[in-house]
Amino acid sequence: MNTTQRISRAAGRTRASDIRDLLQYAHLPGMISMAGGLPAPELFDRDGIQTSTERVLREHHMIALQYGMTEGQPKLRQQLASLMAQRGCPTDAQDILVTTGSQQALDLIARTLIDEGDSVVLERPTYLAAIQVLQLAGARILTLPGDKQGAKVELLPELVGAQRPKLVYVVSNFANPSGACLSLQRRKQLLQWAVANQVLVIEDDPYGDLRFAGEPLPSLLELAREIAGAEQWCGYVSSLSKTVAPGLRIGWTVLPPTLLESAVKIKQSMDLHTSSFTQEVAADYLASGLLARHLTKIRTAYRSRGEALAEALLQSFGNELEFNQPEGGMFLWGRFQSGMDTRKLLDLARKQGVIFVPGDTFHADSPDRSSLRLSFVTCSEEQLREGVKRLAIAYQQLAGAVPRPIH
Amino acid sequence: MNTTQRISRAAGRTRASDIRDLLQYAHLPGMISMAGGLPAPELFDRDGIQTSTERVLREHHMIALQYGMTEGQPKLRQQLASLMAQRGCPTDAQDILVTTGSQQALDLIARTLIDEGDSVVLERPTYLAAIQVLQLAGARILTLPGDKQGAKVELLPELVGAQRPKLVYVVSNFANPSGACLSLQRRKQLLQWAVANQVLVIEDDPYGDLRFAGEPLPSLLELAREIAGAEQWCGYVSSLSKTVAPGLRIGWTVLPPTLLESAVKIKQSMDLHTSSFTQEVAADYLASGLLARHLTKIRTAYRSRGEALAEALLQSFGNELEFNQPEGGMFLWGRFQSGMDTRKLLDLARKQGVIFVPGDTFHADSPDRSSLRLSFVTCSEEQLREGVKRLAIAYQQLAGAVPRPIH
Repeated sequence: MNTTQRISRAAGRTRASDIRDLLQYAHLPGMISMAGGLPAPELFDRDGIQTSTERVLREHHMIALQYGMTEGQPKLRQQLASLMAQRGCPTDAQDILVTTGSQQALDLIARTLIDEGDSVVLERPTYLAAIQVLQLAGARILTLPGDKQGAKVELLPELVGAQRPKLVYVVSNFANPSGACLSLQRRKQLLQWAVANQVLVIEDDPYGDLRFAGEPLPSLLELAREIAGAEQWCGYVSSLSKTVAPGLRIGWTVLPPTLLESAVKIKQSMDLHTSSFTQEVAADYLASGLLARHLTKIRTAYRSRGEALAEALLQSFGNELEFNQPEGGMFLWGRFQSGMDTRKLLDLARKQGVIFVPGDTFHADSPDRSSLRLSFVTCSEEQLREGVKRLAIAYQQLAGAVPRPIH
Repeated sequence: MNTTQRISRAAGRTRASDIRDLLQYAHLPGMISMAGGLPAPELFDRDGIQTSTERVLREHHMIALQYGMTEGQPKLRQQLASLMAQRGCPTDAQDILVTTGSQQALDLIARTLIDEGDSVVLERPTYLAAIQVLQLAGARILTLPGDKQGAKVELLPELVGAQRPKLVYVVSNFANPSGACLSLQRRKQLLQWAVANQVLVIEDDPYGDLRFAGEPLPSLLELAREIAGAEQWCGYVSSLSKTVAPGLRIGWTVLPPTLLESAVKIKQSMDLHTSSFTQEVAADYLASGLLARHLTKIRTAYRSRGEALAEALLQSFGNELEFNQPEGGMFLWGRFQSGMDTRKLLDLARKQGVIFVPGDTFHADSPDRSSLRLSFVTCSEEQLREGVKRLAIAYQQLAGAVPRPIH
């Protein structure tokens, strides 16, 4: 008998992230990694964050270093409310709960709502850590296929049948991994379905501020204000990780008041509160107005990189690799028309000195084995072009070894 | 129908902290609060933290602001391993998991081990947020009474009977709220029982470094190395919140390797990782060697305050209030010999301008209604003396209204 035999059912069903295992290769010399989900570190606004940190420690270190409120530091909640207004969705600071990254918001929402065996709806493919957190909660996961317009919400009635899921989770803008934005029509349709079926919709929006082409869409939270009863069935999650810095671990959620109240009580048991120091630094940084300039800088760099990757892929793979031209976010999602198994491709690609994440990783079920996720933000344009060349060599090796299916 | 009716069973059984509600009065003008569990903010080492923050942002901001490993930043794990060695218990950095405050370590351990209905053993009284996190997990809580030598572990066989609890939780040094240190004999006895019954002991030690009188005792983790099989049944939790600053939210746990592995996978879903920024700042601060000097400063101040409070209580209440002379930590635990109801006392005390936490708050069951917890660290000596005077007035008012029981 040992301690392992005493773990909880929840611990028994968790599995480590594939990506985590894959990232060990990212540090090998000469490796080009398009596998990560990290923002570009050389673009971090060190000076801006340094200035905010100094000011916080000089002007109110006794607040920044002390215990704080579970809901979040009042100054940061105020700044996040302003940020929500800039996103077209004015929000009361009282309706915002600060979390330790948006990951904690997802865990918190799962714990607030889900009992073992409850069903939930996810897009297929979707954010791996959302699948993991819902599996940890013991949820029964139903998956809705997606396309270039996001999750096919029109299939919800058929998918759900007589069940009543606890929530539907969607990444509304530049989804990880698909890069897709949920279309306006589907956003409205999803909200209408949510009200009619009294199911909570959780909109995760870490990437919306990283749009570098095309027109922004209103958030579900904003649209919910125009649909009778919808606000009560709408939750929003976001983060400063992709716009300011992940190391601060600042996320937030906007939830209907009664759910927020339950979530606050649970968060108190989870970590008392998110770091008051990083919250005060983030609040000062947002108040300084530096984010707008910084976002322009990130968007410009990400656009060039996204375009470079798309161009190189088109050149090497032509129509064989189907993908969206990126308009924002961090990821390009591709699918080999030949049905090429991207996990096998990864083995060869790694030997060529390039890694990516095979698409099956992002599926809770019915994996699409010929898809892959390429991050375009942490490599230079030159590295992206070189990475694609290496990928094409690996592809040729595998295509030579495996007969192409007949179309 | 609304969203409230859709919450999980876990959300349904959480309750807000009494202390949280009480602390709203702490901000009233002129109020003397001995109710908080906060360290003294005027003693924070602002300059030291400022220096570390600058160095971190200057020398490796791309690491400090980026995503990090779930286990914790390697530098911090190394520094915490050194700190463990200074505490008499050399530990491998690989056996340390960094958490968002020790509160997250408790939640993580609960999630790793406990299924709804599992039993656990707590001291009576004990740390409120430990009660809350175990209630959130759905644990069946068994309580072991404590005295000036800590939990009466000799009563474990009788308490537990035929059950096999998932864990026993003890605050080993200057426990919150009792101020007691578990005696050496009981530490050994607890470990022997744990091995014989194959039950995990979780030792929570946030206050051990705040000893200002008497002799330190070896941690259970250290003692476990001398008892065959005990290491496997021993977990340790601690925090920088009471020694460096709570706002950094740096806690850690040392667990047997297989449990640590499960815990890491769960933490990945919980918040990916604790703030890499505050971890790097903490690692730099620990590496700078400033903590030793800072601890001397805190201990000196806390000793004077603890003595001032004890003296004032003796003067005002004589033998009527039974309490330990504090030798460390932050709290003085008292008990009125008359059986005075401290919740009623609080109502009157608040009107006199002083607050404390009634002892029943810290009981999962069988509340002791004539006990109270007084923090001596956030008030000046003068405020403590004035606070005790006000408390004595409230006591006289209540004692006048309620006949004293005959001894």
